[in-house]
Amino acid sequence: MKLAIVFGAESYEHEISIVSAIALKKVIFCELIYIFCDKNRDFYLVSSDKITSKRFSSGEYLSDVKLTLKQGGFYFKKLFKENRVEFDAIINIIHGADGEDGKIAALFDFFNIPYIGPGIEASVISYNKFFTKLYAKALGVKTLDYEVVNKNNKNISMPLPIIIKPLRLGSSIGVSVVKEESELEYALDVAFEFDDEVLIEPFVENVIEYNIAGCKIGGNIRYSIIEEPQKELFLDFNKKYLDFSRTNKVYEARVTEMLHGEIRKNFKLIYEPLFEGAIIRCDFFVIKNKVYLNEINPNPGSLANYLFEEFSALVQDLALSLPKRRKIPVTYKYISSIQSAKGKA
Amino acid sequence: MKLAIVFGAESYEHEISIVSAIALKKVIFCELIYIFCDKNRDFYLVSSDKITSKRFSSGEYLSDVKLTLKQGGFYFKKLFKENRVEFDAIINIIHGADGEDGKIAALFDFFNIPYIGPGIEASVISYNKFFTKLYAKALGVKTLDYEVVNKNNKNISMPLPIIIKPLRLGSSIGVSVVKEESELEYALDVAFEFDDEVLIEPFVENVIEYNIAGCKIGGNIRYSIIEEPQKELFLDFNKKYLDFSRTNKVYEARVTEMLHGEIRKNFKLIYEPLFEGAIIRCDFFVIKNKVYLNEINPNPGSLANYLFEEFSALVQDLALSLPKRRKIPVTYKYISSIQSAKGKA
Repeated sequence: MKLAIVFGAESYEHEISIVSAIALKKVIFCELIYIFCDKNRDFYLVSSDKITSKRFSSGEYLSDVKLTLKQGGFYFKKLFKENRVEFDAIINIIHGADGEDGKIAALFDFFNIPYIGPGIEASVISYNKFFTKLYAKALGVKTLDYEVVNKNNKNISMPLPIIIKPLRLGSSIGVSVVKEESELEYALDVAFEFDDEVLIEPFVENVIEYNIAGCKIGGNIRYSIIEEPQKELFLDFNKKYLDFSRTNKVYEARVTEMLHGEIRKNFKLIYEPLFEGAIIRCDFFVIKNKVYLNEINPNPGSLANYLFEEFSALVQDLALSLPKRRKIPVTYKYISSIQSAKGKA
Repeated sequence: MKLAIVFGAESYEHEISIVSAIALKKVIFCELIYIFCDKNRDFYLVSSDKITSKRFSSGEYLSDVKLTLKQGGFYFKKLFKENRVEFDAIINIIHGADGEDGKIAALFDFFNIPYIGPGIEASVISYNKFFTKLYAKALGVKTLDYEVVNKNNKNISMPLPIIIKPLRLGSSIGVSVVKEESELEYALDVAFEFDDEVLIEPFVENVIEYNIAGCKIGGNIRYSIIEEPQKELFLDFNKKYLDFSRTNKVYEARVTEMLHGEIRKNFKLIYEPLFEGAIIRCDFFVIKNKVYLNEINPNPGSLANYLFEEFSALVQDLALSLPKRRKIPVTYKYISSIQSAKGKA
């Protein structure tokens, strides 16, 4: 099997996507090729032995093979001929904008390229935290209370302490905890730098968080272990950056059988059928024994490989059971019938 | 001003998109060029004097100029040089799949091409009728009750009569009214031909429908008149097909001042800020003096031109006030700082 890892793109998380992509090399044991999407959204085929972060930050990748995205795949020119880059499926490991907002999924769907990653709908619902709230609620998955404010209406009715997040970013960028009134204005300014809309949630001190990942293969969800991640208030970007290079296995969290079941049940509710084709990680809070969805990561850092026992096999199995797309026939039946009616008149 | 009308694509509504595109020629009075997306999703530049439905159904368009979509626009080869097709903005008049499901919006966003039409989020929320319900409810816009069923779970608890719709299509395709138990199975089979998920709503006899269109220009919504469309049960595809070629102005519906205000208020709630950049038409039901959202059409047939007094000016004004995109800087700040930390170590 040959998988193509697509990473980079125009995203605040461009750099952690590079880190994620490099990490995958250590944990997927089949033929891998790398397709870098640079900040101008040009694509380059980078040989897997040249995959170092410096290649991208220095611009050395510009001497790699430039690709064009067209029907059926990525193409490059060689001796006046156009060649297609051959692979079985793509792994979308672009984090944040472009990769998780539906753009790259739409490109791959439009050009008929099979990929591991969230589809357009899944991307939009998980990328926009307001939509995530609506979706979770409709499925009966609890979330924290919330308010959405924008630049024209910054009225917040929720009592402090609160947590402020740009509505559409991941990786803790632009996120602040506000415990005192005096911190509010600055925190809002920071968040509004990244989005025109901002999500407000209550900040729950010492909340216990559990992460679980999984994907659907052959009709069944394959769950990862459940992790209780490190207890920092929340990860800032520097820490998250390192977090995205994780490849060491972690220990399963000690949870009761009932809580274990509850966490899996909530994961499954979120996953099906919206996220089919993707390996996602859901981050849950547990408050007074109740499970709350905090966040859906449809392209988690290094694909949350460290949570799975047999990650390499999982990825390859998933590549073989991606959702089939529905081919829509275009027959010109109506135009033809109108034309023949005109002909008879 | 020069506008490029993009139409066709892989969609059950490919043919009515052609009809819509042709209709626009009669109602937009600036330079127009036509970009046809064929059923294989190849793009062709078709001169506006060749725009007849037969050109597309017969395959004659294959002799037109083939285009490639890349950063900044559509390109064609001429004398070994690559030339960009010049225009000020695109009008996306692809109906249904590809055009209203977020794919074409994502392509234009990714390749930095300005367009009139719904963005990715707006497309996903309006194309999926379940998401439309969640969105409307969250904004305080009433909708009819609903259930979503799929092939594995066809249990419907709602009493007859009901209306059955594929979750993700427009233009009445696959839609049935079920008044008797005996009609149910066939109606579900029809709907499941088009989608794996199906929306069930109560069927309200003799409901009054009002349509209104509009778009936001310079901070204000410009509303169309309100139309009470013809009273057919619901339009089947043949009638809808003809409906998409409408260019004759219609009469304003006679509604009370209060209802007029209510309809505009609900339109505005739906429109802002999700649909900025698009001319949308909302179809409302009025039941016992209360306004219910029936459907959002983010690319309505022939852009609902017949509802506007000054449609040509409206389109051109909108083209000049499209939402600005946020350019995300990629600086390699973190990779550089880690590299310099390593260098010092």
